[in-house]
Amino acid sequence: MSDLNAAMAETAQKIEQFLEQFLTAQQLSAPLPAPERLVEAIRHGALNGGKRLRPVLVHFTANLFEHPQGDLIQAGAAIECVHCYSLVHDDLPDMDNDDLRRGKPTVHKAFDPATAILAGDALLTHAFALLADENCHPDPTLRNQLVIELVYGAGVGGMAGGQMRDIEGERKGYDPETISLIHAMKTGALIRASVRIGALMGGANPSELTNLTSFGEAAGRIYQLADDILDATQSSEQLGKTAGKDEAQGKSTLIASHGLDHANAVMRKELQSALSLLDAFGERATPLAQLVTHFAERKN
Amino acid sequence: MSDLNAAMAETAQKIEQFLEQFLTAQQLSAPLPAPERLVEAIRHGALNGGKRLRPVLVHFTANLFEHPQGDLIQAGAAIECVHCYSLVHDDLPDMDNDDLRRGKPTVHKAFDPATAILAGDALLTHAFALLADENCHPDPTLRNQLVIELVYGAGVGGMAGGQMRDIEGERKGYDPETISLIHAMKTGALIRASVRIGALMGGANPSELTNLTSFGEAAGRIYQLADDILDATQSSEQLGKTAGKDEAQGKSTLIASHGLDHANAVMRKELQSALSLLDAFGERATPLAQLVTHFAERKN
Repeated sequence: MSDLNAAMAETAQKIEQFLEQFLTAQQLSAPLPAPERLVEAIRHGALNGGKRLRPVLVHFTANLFEHPQGDLIQAGAAIECVHCYSLVHDDLPDMDNDDLRRGKPTVHKAFDPATAILAGDALLTHAFALLADENCHPDPTLRNQLVIELVYGAGVGGMAGGQMRDIEGERKGYDPETISLIHAMKTGALIRASVRIGALMGGANPSELTNLTSFGEAAGRIYQLADDILDATQSSEQLGKTAGKDEAQGKSTLIASHGLDHANAVMRKELQSALSLLDAFGERATPLAQLVTHFAERKN
Repeated sequence: MSDLNAAMAETAQKIEQFLEQFLTAQQLSAPLPAPERLVEAIRHGALNGGKRLRPVLVHFTANLFEHPQGDLIQAGAAIECVHCYSLVHDDLPDMDNDDLRRGKPTVHKAFDPATAILAGDALLTHAFALLADENCHPDPTLRNQLVIELVYGAGVGGMAGGQMRDIEGERKGYDPETISLIHAMKTGALIRASVRIGALMGGANPSELTNLTSFGEAAGRIYQLADDILDATQSSEQLGKTAGKDEAQGKSTLIASHGLDHANAVMRKELQSALSLLDAFGERATPLAQLVTHFAERKN
């Protein structure tokens, strides 16, 4: 897996560099001068050394194809801005009220809730300019499609809707179908969008796009199932975040309803079907196959 | 002015109809089913019978040109979604903490703050799909420009940055230059973007776009100067909102520093220069000239 780790680290580093240069007062001062405090809050929320899994998915998916076009890093950075916005808003006192994120104070702790709301809003807003920008891809129609894909990933039928369903679940309780839907929307939709954006930049034909969409949906489920299994089996120290949260919150995950062995079996089956969707791409699919296998086997 | 009122009411009604149909579970359920509560909160925040001034600006500006292309209502609706998102977030307890908006409970009062944050996020997100959508304009490159214009209007160098500066001003105090900058960012940037989007859809050439950008900036200043004058001279009953807010908040507006007569004189001068920017468009400019005159002369 050291090839995988190196390739992931390389993309993560390029994303970090891109965001480091893009999320500056200089880049964000149009039409009028960016307020320093907002730029700092945005940087606090986005330049945090994350794994940048969604840009890695864009990159590996586009590289299934021989001649991907456009700037995969710029497109990945747009998705990462949306991912970071969602973390900043989800952490707010009115939402999950988290004080720490990756061992650092959350944006509303380091600044204040109003600044965190605006920093999230701004990350979401500017993500779309990255995709609409001509450096992102030479075909303007395709750039329009990328914008729409990101809207679907982030919007009411995706991430924002998933967070809404999760908040409602906290009040009304969670049944297994609701949990699957929450996962598919909250985590799955942006993973799906990342794969589709990569596929579109690779030049996928309609049937390839359909297959890769299924792959992206499966990758999201695998990522989430592994999360549930880790939550149930690892200590907080091993995870670097609070373990046992699902049980504490009364979430009837697959593990709660059918046990750990069953959850592991479901995940292995999902992994097999995800891998089989990549068969048609031959050797070019190795990084993506390794990545989704890593999703299933990761330890934190 | 009855022609103006009729034309404004017609656009406002078309925007209301467009949003009525667009902001539904059916339209927003992709890739996965929209949660009802989020759709309701979005509709509460956006279907409120506002004057829809920004879509009116798009419409009147595009009609300076003989053959505007695309769906001006769809583009106007996108800007209106962004305007409504900004009201929903600005009203939040962590921001301006307002309970009422146009006589109705604000979204966080009618629902709760978490739902209001998500409703604002969702309105912002879906606005970009309206502009990237092929029904908005036949030219895909132009659609990308529209997306980028809206990002500039809403982003760090525009509305979100203006709200940040306003929050900082509440803590640090406001000097006249800061107040002008806050106005230009908070109110002006989206008005400017509306005019530019209208101009682009009208097919403005570069020098026309430059002039209309100046017009849009002047229109924003006129709108805001009138607001300041109304705040200082009208009763809360006449305004339908709290009067005398600027003085109470210690904002050193032009009125506080130079008096009402001076502010009125500045506004008249801005109006003359805005109107002169429309001269080249002849009779086609009548609605836009009437609109910016209305900005200056409005009583609430």
